[in-house]
Amino acid sequence: MSIQAKKVKSDIEIAQEAVLKPIKEIAEQLNLQENEWEPYGHYKAKISLDVMNRLQTKADGKVILVTSINPTPAGEGKSTVTVGLGQALNKIGHKAIVAIREPSLGPTMGIKGGACGGGYSQVMPMEDINLHFTGDFHAITAANNALSALIDNHIHQGNECNIDPRRITWKRVVDLNDRALRQVVVGLGGPLQGVPREDGFNITVASEIMAILCLAKDLQDLKEKLSRIVIGYNYQKQPVTVKDLGVQGALTLLLKEAIKPNLVQTLENTPALVHGGPFANIAHGCNSVIATKLAAKLADYVVTEAGFGADLGAEKFFNIKSRLGNIDPQAVVIVATIRALKMHGGMAKENLAEENIEALKNGMANLQKHIETIQSFGLPFVIAINRFITDTDKEINFIEKWCQDRKYEVALSDVWAKGGEGGIDLAVKLLKVMDQEKSRFRPLYDLNQSIEEKIETIAQKVYGAKGVEFTPAAKKQLQEYKTFGWDKLPVCMAKTQYSLSDDPTKLGRPEGFTITVRELRPSIGAGFIVALTGDVMTMPGLPKKPAALNMDVDENGRAIGLF
Amino acid sequence: MSIQAKKVKSDIEIAQEAVLKPIKEIAEQLNLQENEWEPYGHYKAKISLDVMNRLQTKADGKVILVTSINPTPAGEGKSTVTVGLGQALNKIGHKAIVAIREPSLGPTMGIKGGACGGGYSQVMPMEDINLHFTGDFHAITAANNALSALIDNHIHQGNECNIDPRRITWKRVVDLNDRALRQVVVGLGGPLQGVPREDGFNITVASEIMAILCLAKDLQDLKEKLSRIVIGYNYQKQPVTVKDLGVQGALTLLLKEAIKPNLVQTLENTPALVHGGPFANIAHGCNSVIATKLAAKLADYVVTEAGFGADLGAEKFFNIKSRLGNIDPQAVVIVATIRALKMHGGMAKENLAEENIEALKNGMANLQKHIETIQSFGLPFVIAINRFITDTDKEINFIEKWCQDRKYEVALSDVWAKGGEGGIDLAVKLLKVMDQEKSRFRPLYDLNQSIEEKIETIAQKVYGAKGVEFTPAAKKQLQEYKTFGWDKLPVCMAKTQYSLSDDPTKLGRPEGFTITVRELRPSIGAGFIVALTGDVMTMPGLPKKPAALNMDVDENGRAIGLF
Repeated sequence: MSIQAKKVKSDIEIAQEAVLKPIKEIAEQLNLQENEWEPYGHYKAKISLDVMNRLQTKADGKVILVTSINPTPAGEGKSTVTVGLGQALNKIGHKAIVAIREPSLGPTMGIKGGACGGGYSQVMPMEDINLHFTGDFHAITAANNALSALIDNHIHQGNECNIDPRRITWKRVVDLNDRALRQVVVGLGGPLQGVPREDGFNITVASEIMAILCLAKDLQDLKEKLSRIVIGYNYQKQPVTVKDLGVQGALTLLLKEAIKPNLVQTLENTPALVHGGPFANIAHGCNSVIATKLAAKLADYVVTEAGFGADLGAEKFFNIKSRLGNIDPQAVVIVATIRALKMHGGMAKENLAEENIEALKNGMANLQKHIETIQSFGLPFVIAINRFITDTDKEINFIEKWCQDRKYEVALSDVWAKGGEGGIDLAVKLLKVMDQEKSRFRPLYDLNQSIEEKIETIAQKVYGAKGVEFTPAAKKQLQEYKTFGWDKLPVCMAKTQYSLSDDPTKLGRPEGFTITVRELRPSIGAGFIVALTGDVMTMPGLPKKPAALNMDVDENGRAIGLF
Repeated sequence: MSIQAKKVKSDIEIAQEAVLKPIKEIAEQLNLQENEWEPYGHYKAKISLDVMNRLQTKADGKVILVTSINPTPAGEGKSTVTVGLGQALNKIGHKAIVAIREPSLGPTMGIKGGACGGGYSQVMPMEDINLHFTGDFHAITAANNALSALIDNHIHQGNECNIDPRRITWKRVVDLNDRALRQVVVGLGGPLQGVPREDGFNITVASEIMAILCLAKDLQDLKEKLSRIVIGYNYQKQPVTVKDLGVQGALTLLLKEAIKPNLVQTLENTPALVHGGPFANIAHGCNSVIATKLAAKLADYVVTEAGFGADLGAEKFFNIKSRLGNIDPQAVVIVATIRALKMHGGMAKENLAEENIEALKNGMANLQKHIETIQSFGLPFVIAINRFITDTDKEINFIEKWCQDRKYEVALSDVWAKGGEGGIDLAVKLLKVMDQEKSRFRPLYDLNQSIEEKIETIAQKVYGAKGVEFTPAAKKQLQEYKTFGWDKLPVCMAKTQYSLSDDPTKLGRPEGFTITVRELRPSIGAGFIVALTGDVMTMPGLPKKPAALNMDVDENGRAIGLF
């Protein structure tokens, strides 16, 4: 294959050779008026929320969700396919926008080195996007920690709200991987330094404010959601909210620019809205509602994605983001790689370069389950096989035959090596599927069901579990939440991304398992109840040799080591 | 007086009525080439450091430092005079740039509500500048805390550098007033959560990285300075540096945009570089060297300021910033108010509206000392009396006579109420003084003197102390620092700003006092040794009713409550 012969360039090499259009041209391409956007440098812009008012009556473009099988260390390339598909749609004459999440600095400095897609399907300028971008995450960090400071000050200055310092659930954040901050004690040093208490830090992307920013419809809605945040409980064990503290205005002020979607472009000058980035465990793992809806007003097709596999990201995209944000998805792309499917079929990571039809065949069960999930939401779909150099013709033929037998549309995606050109087959098949089968999208559960019923529905229909067990602690919380009137909210499942079950070692399509819900957490501001199964990481650690060790700036001020 | 009759508008009302020029016009006014600046919105820009290379051989404009008497709760308005003087110089046909510090979010949310000058002498857009601006402080916060995470990870992953967790001096930061973070314990929760140790948070502006950014000459110098940061000591009690950890490249990468000066404008469209903002106690309290030098290349006059009174800000501007940054100041404006002088003369704050010539007369001693200090640095100066509505003609006449008797040039400044127009008298007198008397600027001490001698020189010549006492702990540190080769660095005094002595209650011009140095702290990256006298606040707290409680956003997304 040609891609084997080419010298393989790194993402940052490709990025630094890119010829970008001034962002003014991208904005004009979208017919944005001059007062509707503000430049942040020559290649980034923030778009005013007023555009939504101007285009209120315009019909929405079609929202396409890119999801994947359960991720493995072999990689899927969901973001790369998302960017590449957007480029491909433009290449064949359609008006498409890519709408994805902003990367977090923590993983960038830690292990990943960057998160803007890859190869010839990247959003640009990747150096800026991977570092501080337009400051959205820093604004969220500041708002989150301002709230913490205001809580501790409230207690220190007399504690009018009668907050129980042992029952403060609001944590501080940094947008870094910093395990030493997971559990801390603050307020030490005597009466002038505040009230001592246990506290902890999450990574910024795990903050409820991140989830709120991504679910808010406008600035007013943002303020309302912020005011509903439960920061902990008082001595009567009743919830204390941001409204009780009276600081929703200040938090909104800190976020008034961050709520505006960021406009950038891909390597092929396809417009991209890169905005928001909530964790896909403790939160819903999707880019902002505002960006997705805005993209739908500005283009005929919006290609967007959701974190992890379809059991987590897509489920939440449908049951939380689409429902709360009033977004009507039209089709789904399910990304898989032959390497990852072989891992799901039992092959060890070290051997994935070898052809192995048997492992591939066994691994298809994982894909099959996610297909059924997408079908249960009433959505047409295409399978995208994201190509790797090691894929053999026999393996590719096997997958194509497997899909043909089941009447599933499948396309090879070569967007990493070829950009939009490598996604044309996928784009054409997607449009064909959308033409043949209309979306009958509906969420999986009704908000009036109990929290237990909602969780059971997800576990059975999406994970394929035989049932759900609630720990005694969780059962007690279910009771409390009903008393507080929180039981009519959607559920945000926090589960391992590696398996359909809550056991990360069970690859493929496990059966007969039970999901154990060990704890619930209220995200009342965001508008959902988090159900925790197993351990949930809200503050990652750094590896032995962090990516930061390879980072630098060259003599021209350009980034080194962001991949 | 006319200003009494006018309805007094708040700073934010004046700001929101301002007609600003697009930043492109301001950049063009400075003859910046199109590729030398990047817009951040329509009214802010970052300037490329390449401009310095292009203008290398151009003669420098004249740098004018605005300083003040010791601050009191009555207020001096140093920033307002700085902005107003810049406007006035432009009004009378000169090319002037204002170069001041960026405000910290902590005090803005806490007590002050904003820090961009006031009245009709403000830098704009004040809402943006007071909130996240172009993200410089957030970048510093991220770099600072990334270093902390990398230190803790280094220890957790095997501690190759043999760092003693009890002797880590590097602290984390937030750009907030948050007393509960002053003293914390991190790394709790067992072996997977890192190594438990005592830690603390400073406000971002008190970070050594802030001082470094403000003293760096270029990106390469920034990296060198970062690499020299001492983060603590190993078990052999030898210093451990950022270079030992190998992360200076990553920190530089995080700061590569923050090091570029920010271009904005005043209410009267005078160009302003607002860049950097180190604390004036633990650091040197001046805007960045890069911005000041760039301003000198772009204009004939640079009006800049330094934190607190002349005993702290000006002393450090001369002995640290000018020396390390190779800046040659040409003249000084000493700001005083009649109200503050009366407080120095013994009047209580509640009575300052009353005429009191006796108190004023006594208070002049404070001004007199600062005049002598400026003279000892060899610089011509003008006294600026920043007008308040309560000033009486008799009081004004007294000051004018006092100055006349001593042959000091004095001007009334009405820039708060009248903008540049109200500063023309000051500007004219300043130019006259600069014409009559050339600067014979020299730092007060030689770098080859010992740390003790440097501190004694400052205490005697600038504070008027009779001597300096070193605690046993400080004496031990003096010895150690000599061993480490740190004794040839300038000294950064951390002293109360309210008094010339180290006792904040001693107003006026105290005499016969001794300064006690209780501790030294090495800022080897920044390139100075901090000498602590009395308590030094590196993390402020919030008041009982923080300014945040009054902050909000109106229906058009505009700020409420930033003053």
